[in-house]
Amino acid sequence: MDLVTLDDIRAAALRIAGVVVRTTLLPGRWDADLRLKPESLQPVGSFKLRGATNAVAQLDPAERSRGVVTHSSGNHGQALAYAARAAGAPCTVVVPEGAPAVKVDQIRALGAEVVLVPPAEREIRAERFVAEQGRTLVPPYDDRRIIAGQGTVGLEIVEDLPEVEVVLVPVGGGGLASGVATAVKALRPDVAVIGVEPEFAADARESLATGAVVSWDVDRTFRTSADGLRTNLSELTFAHLRERLDAIVTVTEEEIAAATARLVRETRLVVEPSGAVATAARLFHAAELPAGRTVAVISGGNLDPARLVQIVNG
Amino acid sequence: MDLVTLDDIRAAALRIAGVVVRTTLLPGRWDADLRLKPESLQPVGSFKLRGATNAVAQLDPAERSRGVVTHSSGNHGQALAYAARAAGAPCTVVVPEGAPAVKVDQIRALGAEVVLVPPAEREIRAERFVAEQGRTLVPPYDDRRIIAGQGTVGLEIVEDLPEVEVVLVPVGGGGLASGVATAVKALRPDVAVIGVEPEFAADARESLATGAVVSWDVDRTFRTSADGLRTNLSELTFAHLRERLDAIVTVTEEEIAAATARLVRETRLVVEPSGAVATAARLFHAAELPAGRTVAVISGGNLDPARLVQIVNG
Repeated sequence: MDLVTLDDIRAAALRIAGVVVRTTLLPGRWDADLRLKPESLQPVGSFKLRGATNAVAQLDPAERSRGVVTHSSGNHGQALAYAARAAGAPCTVVVPEGAPAVKVDQIRALGAEVVLVPPAEREIRAERFVAEQGRTLVPPYDDRRIIAGQGTVGLEIVEDLPEVEVVLVPVGGGGLASGVATAVKALRPDVAVIGVEPEFAADARESLATGAVVSWDVDRTFRTSADGLRTNLSELTFAHLRERLDAIVTVTEEEIAAATARLVRETRLVVEPSGAVATAARLFHAAELPAGRTVAVISGGNLDPARLVQIVNG
Repeated sequence: MDLVTLDDIRAAALRIAGVVVRTTLLPGRWDADLRLKPESLQPVGSFKLRGATNAVAQLDPAERSRGVVTHSSGNHGQALAYAARAAGAPCTVVVPEGAPAVKVDQIRALGAEVVLVPPAEREIRAERFVAEQGRTLVPPYDDRRIIAGQGTVGLEIVEDLPEVEVVLVPVGGGGLASGVATAVKALRPDVAVIGVEPEFAADARESLATGAVVSWDVDRTFRTSADGLRTNLSELTFAHLRERLDAIVTVTEEEIAAATARLVRETRLVVEPSGAVATAARLFHAAELPAGRTVAVISGGNLDPARLVQIVNG
């Protein structure tokens, strides 16, 4: 399988400059060897803006005027809406009926069209926009343009902290981890790149142990608060992780909650549970990790206000 | 009076690199012409780390081993403790009896000695550490080293957004506003630098209107939630603001609360009320401000958790 290269990621970095924030590494207050990469500070609150912007930037003028479509109602849907608006391209987000109204409102506020469909029809309906209206489908992670865009996180880490020894990155569909591992390993093969999953969504760990993509059903993964990490790998992201990731560690729900609270209170970042898993690994599983200067990627900050209140109240 | 120069600020920028975070400008989601300078992301949660680090870095080895002292229990006390620890210098913070235990604990956690004294004796007791132990006094704003350190905020704004047209900066004791106005006006005389105060602590506006330092009593200023801005100007900061600030606007308590909530919800920053006043000015007083590309300085993020809960609950 044709994997994303460092050159793809370098090209993505040039394309996304000006739309995406180059997030500064922040010191982890309680740990002298820890730095945080706060992707929660991106305009739409997550790293997803990087891949979406890289994909939209590669449309030719005719494709751009026909627009883009996706079937993710989460952070990727918002990211694509933002990237499309920045490029002046129409955007449709196919959302399952029953999705939280606040998410639908956020996508609409970014100027995208929202189409509500029965959950099982999401992908088919998105494909219909491609076939009938000539829209370009931009999937959330199973896409080389997306992986290359997310990989710019790894490029920036190595540029901003050349002495880095360990990078901890959340694993959901695997787009972020694939891109970060690609960039970091190409530039600095000696740096350990470790994926982090919730115990309740450890499908990537099982996939790597088994040697093939293993999917966990939503009946299992719904139990994790890290809703952004419930997704399974694709063949493409699995191929990247098998080749380039050093290991995967898992964290518990209690550890995720404690890390989220610590980040809010001590670094003044609003972080979502999915965004806190890498920090949780460093806080609670240091014995399973290589020692040394560590960067934990905070993937997103789209936290439900009620949940923020719970966290702050401890 | 001898004012701080651009060269002083450039020298400070070299001294503080490595301790202080170079905060990235973030887009203001709801306003295409607004950028935020999130000093809340500094290790101690405020811009105060810049001035404190610049002051500590100028101690000679003998002074450094005798250590530093201050009489601020707020963000400056924490900042000096952090800067002193980073430089390996002993630090004493003289704190008024009755100060919140959480603040005392935070200063102690940074390795500084805390001396509790009756409120009226704070300055005298700090002076005694100078006379008897040879400590160097580092005041919170009435000091050229502090103003030069805080001025690095202005330097970074102009470097990172050369097309900036307006800079909005909170005014308390005036150290931050003096430094920022010095840097920005020296580099770009055409950029408007506007101070922002709470209505309930508008002593700097009155001072500039009157032509001399006017102090507002705590009986008046206690009413603002922006506790970091209750302080009055000194002769030194007044001289800088009179010479270099274009204007001052004031904001109400309701506007401060609304801006704080907006920043927490839409930019995923935990911000204290003092830190939100510049954003409040842009949100609610745009008609009083010059138009154009604007940077609002978010001075700090040390928000009481109970208050964060109130804000999120709206």
